[in-house]
Amino acid sequence: MTHAEAGRGAEQGVGVARRSAEVLDDLRLLRIRGGSAIGRAAFTALALAAAEGPDDPAALGAHVRAVGGELLALAPVMATVARAVRDAEAIVEEELRRGTPAPQLRARLRTWAERSVRRSEADLTRLAEVGARLVGSGRTLVTHSFSDTVLRILTHVARAGGTARVVLTESRPLCEGRRLAEAVAALGLPCELIPDAAMGVRVRGADLVMVGADAVLPSGAFLNKTGTYLLALAAADAGVPVYVAAETTKVDPRAALG
Amino acid sequence: MTHAEAGRGAEQGVGVARRSAEVLDDLRLLRIRGGSAIGRAAFTALALAAAEGPDDPAALGAHVRAVGGELLALAPVMATVARAVRDAEAIVEEELRRGTPAPQLRARLRTWAERSVRRSEADLTRLAEVGARLVGSGRTLVTHSFSDTVLRILTHVARAGGTARVVLTESRPLCEGRRLAEAVAALGLPCELIPDAAMGVRVRGADLVMVGADAVLPSGAFLNKTGTYLLALAAADAGVPVYVAAETTKVDPRAALG
Repeated sequence: MTHAEAGRGAEQGVGVARRSAEVLDDLRLLRIRGGSAIGRAAFTALALAAAEGPDDPAALGAHVRAVGGELLALAPVMATVARAVRDAEAIVEEELRRGTPAPQLRARLRTWAERSVRRSEADLTRLAEVGARLVGSGRTLVTHSFSDTVLRILTHVARAGGTARVVLTESRPLCEGRRLAEAVAALGLPCELIPDAAMGVRVRGADLVMVGADAVLPSGAFLNKTGTYLLALAAADAGVPVYVAAETTKVDPRAALG
Repeated sequence: MTHAEAGRGAEQGVGVARRSAEVLDDLRLLRIRGGSAIGRAAFTALALAAAEGPDDPAALGAHVRAVGGELLALAPVMATVARAVRDAEAIVEEELRRGTPAPQLRARLRTWAERSVRRSEADLTRLAEVGARLVGSGRTLVTHSFSDTVLRILTHVARAGGTARVVLTESRPLCEGRRLAEAVAALGLPCELIPDAAMGVRVRGADLVMVGADAVLPSGAFLNKTGTYLLALAAADAGVPVYVAAETTKVDPRAALG
């Protein structure tokens, strides 16, 4: 499944006859990658859980919570998932306290999920515009792992007629860099896939480093794929700026609470 | 071919009926790894070239030089090879100037090669003792790529009844780390093979970093497998000492001259 398909799947899922278990399977089988896309899949899975749950409100709430627990277990580091699960649980708790019947609980979670997915998409569109200005044109960018956000930025660069030479690390052991390389090559941008160990040498000739984030902490520190720390060290040593392209939903609510 | 076999092959080659082309093939097919072992193979190949060359001294000298050129092309970064080739060429030049007949030229190159291999072995034995004291016992060491010298040091640690927890990087793209992991595991030392990108995280809990070198420059800078720079940056950031285990033959004569 390509990046675009993953995005479509997550959006369609809210409206069409799909089950939350299918979305969980997509996540389990790594068919959806990148924290933003995984976050949108989480909204979708939670709305589907509400749609398919039993008619007893308490049992329906328990099913939504169970799917939330599975989401957290599948993507423990992803702030977007933690945020989606936390928000869904707050809605369930509030509506159960009010004695809301199952159909209205389902409707509220569905509206919430649809709005959240739309907001994420709108935020990413704006982020792509801002990011594309940072990348500029004709420059060399080093990235690591697969970032949905970085891909959208590069898509914006390419569609605006700009160019960027993209150096991508393999990103072992799951090789997310190869997936991103395919997507970047499809944009018509020149790209170069390098072993992870070569990032130190290749960052020296680059203009900027740009990566996504699995989570951003309130301190401004961020979590991302293993190897990002090495890339940041090498960039600092070479005097190359590092940009982290991430939605505000990446700020981890768990870290903010504790 | 294991490390030990490669070492034996290189030593036997001087005395037994082998051709220089076989040693070049071993190098081409990466059957011999690590700068020290490759350097000993170079001595052997040059002595074999002398043994198999024609009886006309000038033609014999040309054959030795041709094999030297092939060695340099096969291992352009290896200081040990550059040194072996340079020394063999100096011997050939000197003996041709003196009008030395082919049998004596062969004998001199054979004696030189045998002595050089023995000296390398003796130096490595001493280096293993010194290195084992640095490693100590019960400590965690991170290494990168395949170093014959590091393996000898770890062998010394294990034979002396010591322990060391060895963290090895895959060392993509040729995965020399996997070969070293097999050899270290055979010593009975606990080892952990990690993706290259994880070296930054794993060095934080380690006691020391120890790597070999392809070449050491007169300035003290050294060349080694791609990724060593990242490991050194991460070690510096974590305050973990880095040791480069290398024979003096690793000082590159080309760098010293220019």
